[in-house]
Order: sequence, then structure tokens, then C-alpha cells
Amino acid sequence: MFPFFVRSRDMTETITSVNNPKIKDAAKLLKSAPYRRETGRFIAEGLRLCTDAALSGISVEAAFVTADALAKHADALSPLLNAAERIYVITENVCDRLSDTKTAQGVFAVCAMPGDTAGDAVDPNGTYIAADHLQNPANLGALCRTAEALGLDGVLIGGGCDIYNPKTLRASMGAMFRLPCYSAVRLADILSALSAKGMTLLAAVPDAGAQKITALRPQGGKVCVVGNEGNGISDEVLAVCHTRVTIPMRGRAESLNAAAAAAILMWELVRNDG
Amino acid sequence: MFPFFVRSRDMTETITSVNNPKIKDAAKLLKSAPYRRETGRFIAEGLRLCTDAALSGISVEAAFVTADALAKHADALSPLLNAAERIYVITENVCDRLSDTKTAQGVFAVCAMPGDTAGDAVDPNGTYIAADHLQNPANLGALCRTAEALGLDGVLIGGGCDIYNPKTLRASMGAMFRLPCYSAVRLADILSALSAKGMTLLAAVPDAGAQKITALRPQGGKVCVVGNEGNGISDEVLAVCHTRVTIPMRGRAESLNAAAAAAILMWELVRNDG
Repeated sequence: MFPFFVRSRDMTETITSVNNPKIKDAAKLLKSAPYRRETGRFIAEGLRLCTDAALSGISVEAAFVTADALAKHADALSPLLNAAERIYVITENVCDRLSDTKTAQGVFAVCAMPGDTAGDAVDPNGTYIAADHLQNPANLGALCRTAEALGLDGVLIGGGCDIYNPKTLRASMGAMFRLPCYSAVRLADILSALSAKGMTLLAAVPDAGAQKITALRPQGGKVCVVGNEGNGISDEVLAVCHTRVTIPMRGRAESLNAAAAAAILMWELVRNDG
Repeated sequence: MFPFFVRSRDMTETITSVNNPKIKDAAKLLKSAPYRRETGRFIAEGLRLCTDAALSGISVEAAFVTADALAKHADALSPLLNAAERIYVITENVCDRLSDTKTAQGVFAVCAMPGDTAGDAVDPNGTYIAADHLQNPANLGALCRTAEALGLDGVLIGGGCDIYNPKTLRASMGAMFRLPCYSAVRLADILSALSAKGMTLLAAVPDAGAQKITALRPQGGKVCVVGNEGNGISDEVLAVCHTRVTIPMRGRAESLNAAAAAAILMWELVRNDG
């Protein structure tokens, strides 16, 4: 505690205006995926997520905290405040501007994206999930979180899905800070390369005629691709996959949320009978 | 289209003030679970959810829509507007007051809760999921949605979880309008009665020593209970369950979200090899 307070006293500056350039920059990181990509930075919100980023070795350029949050979470905030290059105390109006939620905790961190991992580091014997054009940021975050929980080796992300979207970060509980995530505009290219290395590529489709995921036990490295909530997997990705798989079910299948479907598919990939 | 417009012209009233008693009542339904329980009513938000309620035969006391939403979604709104006893056009400030989201569609419905189903109608040969003191409303909604998708026979809800919380409704995609939901303050009482009828009661616990859900194939009627995100299943519910079950996994198990865990458990209950 004390080292943080000593340090923060030196470095803290108070920001009261939403027109402060630091706040305009942070707000743009909140709203704009192109700006995030362009600058290689993102903004995390919330005590837990910001602390997770700091503890996972993500580089924290700046922490923004309200006086209220500082008072309430002094202990819990110390990993974030120690990791941050700069600390800013912000007023409530500034907090509202930076927040993606209706009930903000008043804790934000502007971070550098970890070095882009282009797929070369994928373990050809590993088990991966790939998301092709997932539309809902919360689904992508939940998918990352479940992948980490179930012990998958990583996540491949295609079609411009942005894992640094505020809603994705929140739903992931910071899984992407700890789990290898490979992202590419053209997912088909990464998948082709992995196929050449001997990995099995599975495409999840809502088609009762496809191979049942329950009946499939692929040995060795594998990637299971899930597609867009409305349109499924893109044609170019489908074309490089080896096997179409489906979740055999008797309910209202069209109601299965993409994150729940991905959870069941990942579960089947790592499931061990008996 | 025309019948609706004729009808709505007669019945439509415009509300511009957040102090209008109808709006104060609706806002209270948004915020207060006790008020929802006391009056047996709830508020649904969003075009899809409100339409689902109307199409599922839920009684719609009033629809509140902005002029913007009326213009944009005239066709899609007609089931809601036809079902609603009264229709109110609301201004943007009123819409903000009623909305639980940052980006409101401007469509709301005040509905009557379907007749409370106390557990007598549970099919003793069916497959059910029970939620004991789930804390996160979105998890409860996702659980209901997955239960419907996977073809479970219903959901039992205990410990004062409120399926009419706005966040629960949103995450459920209206599953509770179509799927039998039984709610009780004392879940243990319902479960005891079901046990007496011969149903098998499973308690999901994060304990590697418990029976693996993958190795279990209970015949006949069954209920699988999932507990609170932090504290698990309450002691009184655990005491009436027959078998403790767990999801065997190698990852960061503590990261498995309650909704994802419930999806995997429900999947195992209905899963059919081969």
C-alpha cells in the first residue's frame, strides 16, 4: 500500500473535463475499433478487468480512477496503480464519458495490445476454437472465457472480430490476457496453413445431416470453427474445413445462443468419457 | 397493418413527462423486484422481446413506444400493438427513463406474469434444471434460453431469483414465455416433493471428488441443481439432493461462467452418444 501511495502522489493529475485530450483519446478507444487497431491500444473498464490486465503483464499506459473508487478499493487497486505508467484521478462526469455501462465502478486502464500473434505459434497438436465473423461482442468474450476455463490451447479470431471491444473484454473476464489469441482478417489463410501442418479443421453447422459432434473423436491437433450468429460460417472458411459437425439436439435449436453452442462444442472437443 | 392503425388511433395517448403516473409505475417495475412480485407484473424492453411476449400469449397491459420506433418498425410492432390493452407514444426523455440499456430501441411492454406455477405441474419423467440463488440476472436468462434450446422440460428457480429482471429477460430471449418456469423461495421444498415422486436430484458442485457428470446416465425424471456463482448450492438444497456431480475439466475451472457450466450440465443430461 504505502509504496503505491508515495508513487501515486508524485504522478497523479486530476482531470475534470471531458474535453481533456487524454479523455478524448480514451473515449475514442472505447468507441472505435479502427482507432484501437490503428494505435494498437485499448481501454479496459472495471476493477477486476483492469487488475487482471496489470497482473497478466499487459502494458498499462494510463489508469483513470475516480476519487470514490480510490477510496473504496484502495487495496484492490494497487496492482493496477503500480503497473500504470501514469495515474489520473477523474471526476464523475469524466467517468460517465469513459464508461460503457450504466453503473460504472470508476476504474479504467488504457493498455497496449499484446504483440499480435499471427498464428505461427499455434501448437499443431493442440485444441483450438475459431470464431468466424461473430457479431455479438459479448458472445466472443464468453467464448474466450469458456475456452480458458475448459483448457483449450487458444482462440483463433477471424473476420474483423475485435477482442478489445469493451463488451467483449467484460464478458471474457480478461481471458484474452492469459490465453493465446490469434486474429486475422482472413481466417481461411491461417486455417489453410494449420491444415498443411496436419491439424483437423471442423466446421460447426446447424445441419442435422452433418457429422454429430458426439460421434467424433478426432485424434491430434484440431480447430473447431463457429460462425456468425445469423449467417453461420463464411464460404471461404467452410471451403478449407475438413468436416462439418453439428450439435444433435431435440429442443428449439435456433434458440441456442452462439456462446452456449461454442461451450458445448469446446466441451465435446475436450470431453473424456468415464 | 391497417387494423392496427385504426385501433391505435383510437387508443393512443402521448406521454411526454417522466412524472406521468403510468411512467412512474413502469419505471418502478423496471427497478424493483418486490414491486414486480407484489403487483404480479413486469416490464419487457426491446422489439423482439416485447413481440415474443405478445406472441406467446402473455397478457400485455400496455405498450410504450417512441414515434421513432413506430416509424422504423411499423410492421414488426403489429403483434405487440394488437395484443396491448393500451398503447402510449412516449418521447425520448421518457424512453430513457424506462430503458435498462444505453441504446434503447424505444419499445416497452408492461405485462402480467403468467399464473405462478408452483411445481405441481412438473413432469416426474422429465428433465429439469434448477437454479439456486443465482446472483447474476444475465446468467439466469442465459440458463433459461439454453434450457429451451436443448429441449429441457422446464426450469426451477429458487432463492428469490427473479426471472422478470430486465437483464434476465433480455438474456433469455423470452425463453420463460414459452418454457415452464417454477419459482419458489424455498427450492428445497419443491425438490423434496419431486424426490418423493421418484425424480433423481443432482447437485452440481466444483469438487473433483464428486461423481463425474460424464459417467452418469440417470434414467427417468431428473433435476440438476446449479448454485450461486460465488457460494454454490445452499446447504438446505444440498441436503435434499441425491448425488453430487461435477464437470471434469483440465482448464482454469474457476473461470467457467455459471451460464456456460449450466449449458454443459444440461447438455450432459440430454446428450445421446452416437
